[in-house]
Amino acid sequence: MALSVDEKYELITRNLQEVLGGDAIREILKERDLELYFGTAPTGRPHCGYFVPLMKLADFLQAGVHVKVLLADVHAFLDNMKAPMELVQHRVRYYELVMKAILKSLNVPIEKLQFVVGSSYQLKEDYALDNFRACAVTTEHDAMRAGAEVVKQVASPLLSSLMYPGMQALDEQYLNVDVQFGGVDQRKIFILAEKLLPMVGYKKRSHLMNPMVPSLAGGKMSASAGANAKIDLLDEPNVVKKKIRSAFCEPGVVEENGCLAFLKHVSFPAMKMRGEKEFVIDRPEKYGGKIIFASYEDLEKAYVANTLAPQDLKDGLQASINALLASVQAELKSYPDMEGVVKLAYPDPKDAKKAKKDKKDKKKSAKKDNTDKQPEAEQTQSPAAPVLESSQEKPADDAKQA
Amino acid sequence: MALSVDEKYELITRNLQEVLGGDAIREILKERDLELYFGTAPTGRPHCGYFVPLMKLADFLQAGVHVKVLLADVHAFLDNMKAPMELVQHRVRYYELVMKAILKSLNVPIEKLQFVVGSSYQLKEDYALDNFRACAVTTEHDAMRAGAEVVKQVASPLLSSLMYPGMQALDEQYLNVDVQFGGVDQRKIFILAEKLLPMVGYKKRSHLMNPMVPSLAGGKMSASAGANAKIDLLDEPNVVKKKIRSAFCEPGVVEENGCLAFLKHVSFPAMKMRGEKEFVIDRPEKYGGKIIFASYEDLEKAYVANTLAPQDLKDGLQASINALLASVQAELKSYPDMEGVVKLAYPDPKDAKKAKKDKKDKKKSAKKDNTDKQPEAEQTQSPAAPVLESSQEKPADDAKQA
Repeated sequence: MALSVDEKYELITRNLQEVLGGDAIREILKERDLELYFGTAPTGRPHCGYFVPLMKLADFLQAGVHVKVLLADVHAFLDNMKAPMELVQHRVRYYELVMKAILKSLNVPIEKLQFVVGSSYQLKEDYALDNFRACAVTTEHDAMRAGAEVVKQVASPLLSSLMYPGMQALDEQYLNVDVQFGGVDQRKIFILAEKLLPMVGYKKRSHLMNPMVPSLAGGKMSASAGANAKIDLLDEPNVVKKKIRSAFCEPGVVEENGCLAFLKHVSFPAMKMRGEKEFVIDRPEKYGGKIIFASYEDLEKAYVANTLAPQDLKDGLQASINALLASVQAELKSYPDMEGVVKLAYPDPKDAKKAKKDKKDKKKSAKKDNTDKQPEAEQTQSPAAPVLESSQEKPADDAKQA
Repeated sequence: MALSVDEKYELITRNLQEVLGGDAIREILKERDLELYFGTAPTGRPHCGYFVPLMKLADFLQAGVHVKVLLADVHAFLDNMKAPMELVQHRVRYYELVMKAILKSLNVPIEKLQFVVGSSYQLKEDYALDNFRACAVTTEHDAMRAGAEVVKQVASPLLSSLMYPGMQALDEQYLNVDVQFGGVDQRKIFILAEKLLPMVGYKKRSHLMNPMVPSLAGGKMSASAGANAKIDLLDEPNVVKKKIRSAFCEPGVVEENGCLAFLKHVSFPAMKMRGEKEFVIDRPEKYGGKIIFASYEDLEKAYVANTLAPQDLKDGLQASINALLASVQAELKSYPDMEGVVKLAYPDPKDAKKAKKDKKDKKKSAKKDNTDKQPEAEQTQSPAAPVLESSQEKPADDAKQA
């Protein structure tokens, strides 16, 4: 399936909200495959919202793009200072497995998908010096403006939040990519990057921006949204059902409708990727029987016309998500010791409390067993005064992968 | 000369404006010698003002303190981005030679004097991570307040200037010292350090502060003061004479009198260190002959009483400075290739222009000859858009010394 330059460009940019530097992308495509990066901080647990950017990564991979996923462990560690670096490394591992599983479940070729852990280069000498240089040409005002949409706005921000935009620019250079991809909420950071890199002697990159997709609770779906709205990738079918039942879904209205948004951005494209021709809502015979849509547009029209009821839409969505999750979970099961990875990445707070107590009892416990230092159990500690016992440790090498 | 704890403490703290954590210092002195650090950024050319902190370093060394001088090359590079890192390394070397020469000329034992180059640890992984951690617990507000007296106050500061106070705190940990010494203008930075280090899991250090000494032009003497007021350590006697002649010296007034301040903080203490008993002003016989003072206090009294004229005071000062410089310059001459070091550290702008032109003519010049990339010749380049050709180079190892 040798795609033309135009076909590749179309696939790379379809469904995006904005493209900065499209001409440069075209020029590169004439000569070689594109190099692109997408960054994510493994702070919480990846949830269904992850399908949205991954559908775009699927497009990139289909277009022959070399996709680098930056697992920003340093950022995750700093944003969540109660989590020691070792715990973050387990989450890095989990994120990688999950993202691979999702793409494989969609039949996307992942030979050109690469995971890079931030600490593998963001703590090295050349990066440290470049970060200092970036800080020496970036005003507090510019940094604040750049982070305005993604950093919590407070009267006096932390210096780290002022540094992130510049680091995101340097990452483009250090990951040696042509393009950075992210949500349109990253727009101001991307604009800063285009200005900053040439100031420290590097070439500016192109930027691809996904639209923001409302969550099932209405509004942007993120790891910090309410638990009810978040569908974990490991949730069982009945849990998914329950969560979808409580999702926000105004009859006949498309705006801020997370259920419709998921169908549009994930379910229908995924259906096509998996070679399925129709979207089927399995309504019981007594209520009128199956409803079938060939395209999302048809479904949306029916919903706006109130010929498709929210309850039926939710049934279809629930079945779709459970089908997606079933494939992902099957993929994940094929990894040896998946359960062990999850346990290390998200230890049970009760286990942690017990381990902490045991440790107090006999002060010199085994040095390598750091699973007891996990965040939820450390609530007595002030977030402003973190004492990070394992912060000096080198990140586990096995979490990095080329 | 085994000093008691009290004698050591007295020597360490005499003439200071403020001591924070004196009790901790006493406790340490009961058990071992103190570890102290003094930081300086080798931006410009060290001048006579350097004698002031060095007189205090002399006290520390006499009290058996292990003194680490941090030559902050990374800071110097960032504050003066037009100077490539390699040039900064030559300045680092020159600063070290000069500081050693001054102390040796004062008969101060320098066995426990150590020079540490900032880039030898400030770009390493553990420091980079700790710097990120410090930035993740420091608000922009706190950083701005800490730097208020030493950083130029602008509406929107550069991120680097917000980072320096936190780095100065981390330096205490990474240099493994008990105490940081500096001018009282560093007070807010020291206060931040005492608060910040415990927040990232390290113990807080004590702080010793020198009073601010007015320069010969009146006001603080710094490398950025007017050239007339600055007496270079390599200045010849007639140049010193000329500069002193133009110094600010209000008859009968002590305040803001840089001439009196130098006599008080440098000339008289240096006289004692060198075993001289009297300060002699060599007034010609026709104007009344020699004036002799046994102490600075006597001299100040005479000046306030207007029995010592500004012209005579200046004659005494000029002779004193030239005597100090003669010893320093003699010490410096004993270093092989001192002239070469100075030439590399402060290349003649005319040479640079010529070299630049030569380079343009034949593009591939010798790789190691970077002396042409020096700041004064790069004035066509915008400071906001520095292109730092050698910034990626490792600092020269020979500039570091244990």
